[in-house]
Amino acid sequence: MYSDLWVEEKFKDFLGLRLKVEQVLFSGRSEFQTVDVVETKGHGKMLLNDGLIMVTERDEFAYHDMISHVPLFVHPDPKNVLIIGGGDGGTAREVIRHKNVEKCVMVEIDAMVVDACKEFIPQTSAALDDPKIELIIGDGVQYVKEAQQKFDIIIVDSTDPIGPAQPLFGPEFYQDVYNCLSDKGIVVSQGESSWYAMDIQKSLLKVLKDQFPKTMLYSFSNLTYPGGLWSFTFASKGLDPLTNFDPQRVVDSCLEFEYYNAELHTACFSLPNFVRKGLSELIDNS
Amino acid sequence: MYSDLWVEEKFKDFLGLRLKVEQVLFSGRSEFQTVDVVETKGHGKMLLNDGLIMVTERDEFAYHDMISHVPLFVHPDPKNVLIIGGGDGGTAREVIRHKNVEKCVMVEIDAMVVDACKEFIPQTSAALDDPKIELIIGDGVQYVKEAQQKFDIIIVDSTDPIGPAQPLFGPEFYQDVYNCLSDKGIVVSQGESSWYAMDIQKSLLKVLKDQFPKTMLYSFSNLTYPGGLWSFTFASKGLDPLTNFDPQRVVDSCLEFEYYNAELHTACFSLPNFVRKGLSELIDNS
Repeated sequence: MYSDLWVEEKFKDFLGLRLKVEQVLFSGRSEFQTVDVVETKGHGKMLLNDGLIMVTERDEFAYHDMISHVPLFVHPDPKNVLIIGGGDGGTAREVIRHKNVEKCVMVEIDAMVVDACKEFIPQTSAALDDPKIELIIGDGVQYVKEAQQKFDIIIVDSTDPIGPAQPLFGPEFYQDVYNCLSDKGIVVSQGESSWYAMDIQKSLLKVLKDQFPKTMLYSFSNLTYPGGLWSFTFASKGLDPLTNFDPQRVVDSCLEFEYYNAELHTACFSLPNFVRKGLSELIDNS
Repeated sequence: MYSDLWVEEKFKDFLGLRLKVEQVLFSGRSEFQTVDVVETKGHGKMLLNDGLIMVTERDEFAYHDMISHVPLFVHPDPKNVLIIGGGDGGTAREVIRHKNVEKCVMVEIDAMVVDACKEFIPQTSAALDDPKIELIIGDGVQYVKEAQQKFDIIIVDSTDPIGPAQPLFGPEFYQDVYNCLSDKGIVVSQGESSWYAMDIQKSLLKVLKDQFPKTMLYSFSNLTYPGGLWSFTFASKGLDPLTNFDPQRVVDSCLEFEYYNAELHTACFSLPNFVRKGLSELIDNS
């Protein structure tokens, strides 16, 4: 029994975000990282990898809506989607809501993340049993190197560039991603915080810009990541998330979202000046 | 000498945001609240009222840009501006950058806030010496009740609805605000977080909707407020922040901003679905 248990995510040595924990549901150490699932007070169940907050039930819809629906409503006919990472299942859950999607391959390196989420966070993981999803426990870097199949959309739903996710921020990986994408392909990646991690954003965007004719950054509000203003990168072989987006498709889909909507789709590419200036020459929406 | 000093802002009993403190510059207790200025590691100097984070040098530009430039670029000719609160001076600093503004009256209840900021946070407070600014130490509620003058824009730059700011969220105050506004008047108010304080947002918006034909909510990213996604309410006697906004005016102003820009002006009124749904019937942009 704990009397006053908190999880704290530190950023560098000057910021801490603390969430009250009611109960530890799972604690393990896999080959790749520590994996914890806790029941919080105020934020529902929460997954942590290496002590960093990955997902809480309270706000996961914001992240999962924005990483998936933005590219899926830009591509004219997304049939095959590949997710690298995303072990909690929330991204896959949103991807397969789109009727066009025939197959969603998900390559997660860490079985322990999937198993822990399947057992304790059905809100995100329940979709993983859907027959449209092919779950592969394996190395996403290796997968895109060897893949024979082409994908219309690749979503890199990774942790920060430490531990197992580090190669997912490098040039070799994105060269393979490019080769795995069909002609109208789009890749969207977890893009960190402009407030605290613009150095990582710059480095990732440089890699993307070397491969893709179009690179952009879009933002959303993540309640439980330090700084709140979080980003995804958008890179494509040509499709533009603004001019190739038809708001009517959102209406016609009859899908309901807790965060995403057609207005926000466009608005999320409007960035504050400090982000535009900091990333100018790396993004087309600066 | 402190070995490891942190300031923690708690939200209810389940969230804490901790910032590393290098040095306490000022600690006082006024008639209204405690007032602290600290030098942080990573966020510059920081003002706290009653232990709550008001301003940090690192991110204050986001808040002050968005509370001031949105209404000032909507009103066709803002000559007279009233600020209620805003003791750190950052809002006044941005208001008087607009050439149209002839006079900016600022009514701050707590002299200790102004004095502490003048001494320790010149980044926000230096503008308070500008001859366009008339600084009144007094009760904003009383001021708008008795004011003879009309204002084009009133900005309610208040703390949370506890302590001295409580009446600034009530119907009597906003009736007086309405009466103080000129025909094309706009009032913008600190509008809390949609993630954590939608109950306060609802209550404030109900009050505004009873007085004003147009009520809207817009959002921005505040690095150092719990939840990140922060809001301002926009209420007017008729002006619409989207259709009455001409992006060319931002260009013509020749002003440079670290956060605000013309695209963001429109984008910030596009709200996530959970906010739209939660505030439907209270805001015109739901």
